[in-house]
Parts: sequence; C-alpha cells; structure tokens
Amino acid sequence: MTTFADAALGIGPPDAAAADAARRRWDTRVKPPGSLGELEDLAIRLAGIAGVCPPPALGRPAVVVFAADHGVVAEGVSAWPAEITRLMAATVLAGDAAISAFARSVGASVTVVDVGILPGEPHPLPGLVDGHVADGTANLARGPAMTGHELAQALDVGVRTATTAIDGGADCLIGGELGIGNTTAAAAVIGAFAPVDAAALAGTGAGLPPEQLPAKESIVRAAAAAARGIDDPAERFAAVGGLEVAALAGFYVGGVARRVPVIVDGVIGCAALLAAEALAPGTTEGCVAGHRSAEPAASIALEHLGLQPVVDLGLRLGEGTGAALAVPVLRAAVAALSEMGELPGIE
Amino acid sequence: MTTFADAALGIGPPDAAAADAARRRWDTRVKPPGSLGELEDLAIRLAGIAGVCPPPALGRPAVVVFAADHGVVAEGVSAWPAEITRLMAATVLAGDAAISAFARSVGASVTVVDVGILPGEPHPLPGLVDGHVADGTANLARGPAMTGHELAQALDVGVRTATTAIDGGADCLIGGELGIGNTTAAAAVIGAFAPVDAAALAGTGAGLPPEQLPAKESIVRAAAAAARGIDDPAERFAAVGGLEVAALAGFYVGGVARRVPVIVDGVIGCAALLAAEALAPGTTEGCVAGHRSAEPAASIALEHLGLQPVVDLGLRLGEGTGAALAVPVLRAAVAALSEMGELPGIE
Repeated sequence: MTTFADAALGIGPPDAAAADAARRRWDTRVKPPGSLGELEDLAIRLAGIAGVCPPPALGRPAVVVFAADHGVVAEGVSAWPAEITRLMAATVLAGDAAISAFARSVGASVTVVDVGILPGEPHPLPGLVDGHVADGTANLARGPAMTGHELAQALDVGVRTATTAIDGGADCLIGGELGIGNTTAAAAVIGAFAPVDAAALAGTGAGLPPEQLPAKESIVRAAAAAARGIDDPAERFAAVGGLEVAALAGFYVGGVARRVPVIVDGVIGCAALLAAEALAPGTTEGCVAGHRSAEPAASIALEHLGLQPVVDLGLRLGEGTGAALAVPVLRAAVAALSEMGELPGIE
Repeated sequence: MTTFADAALGIGPPDAAAADAARRRWDTRVKPPGSLGELEDLAIRLAGIAGVCPPPALGRPAVVVFAADHGVVAEGVSAWPAEITRLMAATVLAGDAAISAFARSVGASVTVVDVGILPGEPHPLPGLVDGHVADGTANLARGPAMTGHELAQALDVGVRTATTAIDGGADCLIGGELGIGNTTAAAAVIGAFAPVDAAALAGTGAGLPPEQLPAKESIVRAAAAAARGIDDPAERFAAVGGLEVAALAGFYVGGVARRVPVIVDGVIGCAALLAAEALAPGTTEGCVAGHRSAEPAASIALEHLGLQPVVDLGLRLGEGTGAALAVPVLRAAVAALSEMGELPGIE
C-alpha cells in the first residue's frame, strides 16, 4: 500500500473469532478467571487485531519518529525555537535521545522521517529518511496550517513508512514525533475533532512558562472552534494539523490496514488518531494507547476514543517514549496467554 | 547475612549524594526538565538505593516465590482448597504459571521456596527449595497464626534467600508468593499495622464468590483489631501473618540491607513490607512498589507506606506478576538516565 486512500479502504473490524478464542483461552489458563486484569483485555485486543490466537509476540517493534516544523511558533507558544526540531532529529539519529535509550531497552528499531523540517543546521543529517512535504506548516492562528495537497502528501508518507516497516519485518508499530510547536497543533486538532467543554486543552508542552499558558490556550481554542465549523474532515485536519501529525495518522492507518498492532504515544499521537478515525473509521480498533500523557488534551482524546492507556507515569516528552514503555507490558500479556498451562480439572 | 536480626541492623538511609547526582543528571539530559515524569523519580530512587549514579541496569532480576499454607482456610475464606498451594508450586516449577511466562518475558530467574506447604501430592517437587518452617499456619481466626519461633525462622528464610540470590548475581529482587488463604492473612496484617477506617480490607482474592465476602471481611476485621492491641510488632505480625508473608518480609529486609532494589508485588507484598517496616524501620526506602493490586487492602498499605506503584492494571494474581511488569519500566528509566546525551548550550 502506498496511498492513504488505499490503506483506508483496507481497514476492517477486529477478528471476532480470534478475540473470542483468546477470551476462552484466558478462562482455561491456570489462574483465577480475570486475575490478570487489563492484561487479559490487551491480549484479547491484540488477537482481534492480528486475527490469530495467541497473537504474535511483538518481538520486532519499529519506532518511527516523524519530524516537522510549525508556523504557529511565531505566536510564542513554545519555550524553544523551531531550530530545535532539526537538532532533536540529529539527537535521535545519533542515538542520544530518550527514545533512543527506550528503544534499545525494549529492542525496537528507530527511524526518523523528515516530513517538514525547516532548512537549517546541522545539514545533512545522515540516516534521516526523506519524506519532506514542505518547510513546516503555515501559522494555524492566521489561516489553514496545510493545503489539502500537503495534507494528502503527508498522509501518504505515513502509509508508505508503515508499509516499509512491516515489509521489513516489524510486528508492532510505534509512532513518535518531533516538532517544536506541535503540542499547540495537537491540542487544536483534539479540540477540532472531540467535543470539548470548559476543560483546558493546552498544556505546558516542552516547558512553556505557566504565565504564557493562557495565551496558548486562547490560540488553541480559537483555532479549534474555527476548525469545528469545517464539515470535511480532511479540510478540518489541514486547518489545524501538522505535517508530522498527518504522517502519524497515515502511519496508523497503514499499520491497522495490515493488521499489525499500532501503539499510540501521547498528545500528538492521540490527535493523529482522532483525525485518522475521522478520515478512516475503524482505525482506533487496531490501536493500543501506550500511555496517558500529562498534557490535558491527551486525556480528552483518550476518553473520546474509548481507549484505556497501558501506563500512566506523567510523561510529557513525546518522541514515542510513552508508547515504547507499553511494549514489555503487551509482551508479558501475550507471553502469558501463549505459554501458561491449562487449568486442571479440580473437584 | 543469614539472620533477620543482622539484616535489620544493615538497613541504612538512601544515599543522598547518589540521588542528588541523579537529579542533576536528569536536568542536564537532552529533554525538557521533568518531562519523563515518574520515571525520573524512579531512577533517582534507584540511584539512592544503589549508592551510585547512574544505578545498575537491572539486567539480572531474580523472582523468588515463597509458598505456604494457612489455617484460616478452615473458615471458608477461599474459593480453593489448600491443596492448590502445592499444585501451583508445581506449576511454577514446571514453567507453566503466569509468573513463569512473565519472568521469561523480562529475563528473570524464578525460584520457589517452601516455607510451609502442607504435606500432600505431588511429592516430591523437583527444584523446590526447602525453607519449610511448619505445615502451614494455625487458624488466625482462632488464635495466633504463628509462634514467635516460627515467625523468626520464616524471617530468616527470607533473608537467606535474598542473600543467596544476590551472591548469585541478582541486581534486583522480586518477591512473589503462593498460599491459598493468604489474601485473608495479608488483609489482616495490613489492618493490624496501618490505620484503617471504614474502608473494606478484604477482597475476593482468587475468586471468592461475592456473597462470601462479608464473612471474610468480618474475620479479617476481628483478627486485625485483636492484633492492633498487641504492642510488640513481632508478636502482632505472628498473630495474623503467614509463613510466606514473613519470609517475604525477611527477603525485603535482606535485599534492602545489601542495597539491591526490591520490587514489591501486590497485597501480600504490601502486607509483608508493612510488617518489615515495623520490624526494621527504613526498609520501605529501599523498595519500589511494582503495581497496584485490585485487592482493596493493597491501596491502604501503599498509601500508608507512601509508595506510588509503577503500573496499575487491575491484576490480582500474585506470584510476583505485578512486580515483574515494573522491571522493564525501571530498566527504561535507568537506560535513559545512563545513555541520553547532554543538553547543548542553547541561546
């Protein structure tokens, strides 16, 4: 699959027979029924996704970090200048970032894809995968962040990246991201696609001083409110999204269409999944929420999507770190379902 | 160290210099300050325990499952007969239990120690480590569960087991348990050592029918109330504890005295730690709470101990399963602290 349109057509419901087989298998393992709690639900979900019970062991997870810049940084929504996006891409490629350490810790590969990093230094970045659609987005506070064509290209980048990872042997996909300003875009996407009442959407992201939070919240609310007035989901997403957020959405749809489990990371991942679900209904059923980000909009999105995160440890770093933490928990769930003995008949 | 008394004398405070070094190291890693949330606190705690920054990588965790029977099963507090304790010990030794699968999944060794399994079939159990103190406890609803001598012996078994594991190369200890009736004993220990108001202590354990829960709660409350009247902490613990609960307490104290991190499992582990803290103050500071058990008394104990569990997934299986799930999270925290690059000077 090379286009988002193809991948979206490939989204199907979970395999009910495989999920039922997992449910029955749990109830005959040598333990009190239900005593592995949410791990039982997770393994059932993975069986439904893969269409086989027990599901694959998640031995070859692939982390893909999509990186892009955001015109909205001109509004002072970030504690960091846009140049940091490129610098962090270099840091991940050098193996020095948090996600680098986490990925080594759980035995995952790491790929960094440029979807829209601004020109700058260091250049070139050896190992960076070229998926460049544009030099960042336009300022979402002043007009649409992306054109429809840019959105479509970024979605396709995500699908192609998922396809490449799966064809390379990945049995589990973790989408991460880098992009100074992207908690603003993500909160606006969540506000545009999920019903939001008075609850705060904006968080401090990568360390915004608290006194600047009200201004960020105003920008997010105004952009989200304007976007909610747009009926077409693609046009709505383009209005407030980011190139890496769109690529993540494509990555999810690409993985789910191939029935490979996708672990969703924090607030950017949640925003991407909300948009993906609007564009390709059913995508959520193929995903697992890796963690609950400390960013407030993440919890709004998780609730709207009906997802219970695997871990909840106050992370707000992005890069795919929270999703990577969920891998060993999912592995343990699958290992128990696969390897536990059967309950003997007892009188 | 071979006795509990020796080990208790070896308990010291966390190393403040190593913890401070970890705190400073986090703040110079290439990420927003504090953005790894509770993982930063966990790595700081591990540095303080080990007395070195970065702390050891938790590459060789040892799971020890202490098994014993409980006289209180005569009161109908369990859905299962006492024979199941021996059968589950055989299941763990065969590699077929949940903890067997989890331990393989995280690369941990598994040892099963008989502290007080009732005689029965299957016998012998190849691989079972002999720490047998008595043929189960007396019925805690009718009198003290253990004599002072039995308690002392079980505590020593735990210390010796920790010493053996550490001398064998373990860099992280996980205490698990098996014992039909032990959620009753554990809830009574927690009620005896932690202030309890009207909140329920008893849970359904390994599948007690809900209609039998009020009777279990009455037994637990009466035993805990009587034990609270006993000033001497050892005598109080002996009144309501279990042989495997006592061995776990000794195991924790033995590990903490050697400055090897101990991951505490669910409600039985929390009960053991409460008692250990009363007998050897400072033990808690050397431990990490692996998970929040679904058993209500576990949360009472965690709050009293001031511990925040790493995962919260509704497990209520025991065996050390919840603690095993925390290992990869702790490894990721240590890997990030150890391996992440330094924040460059940025203008």
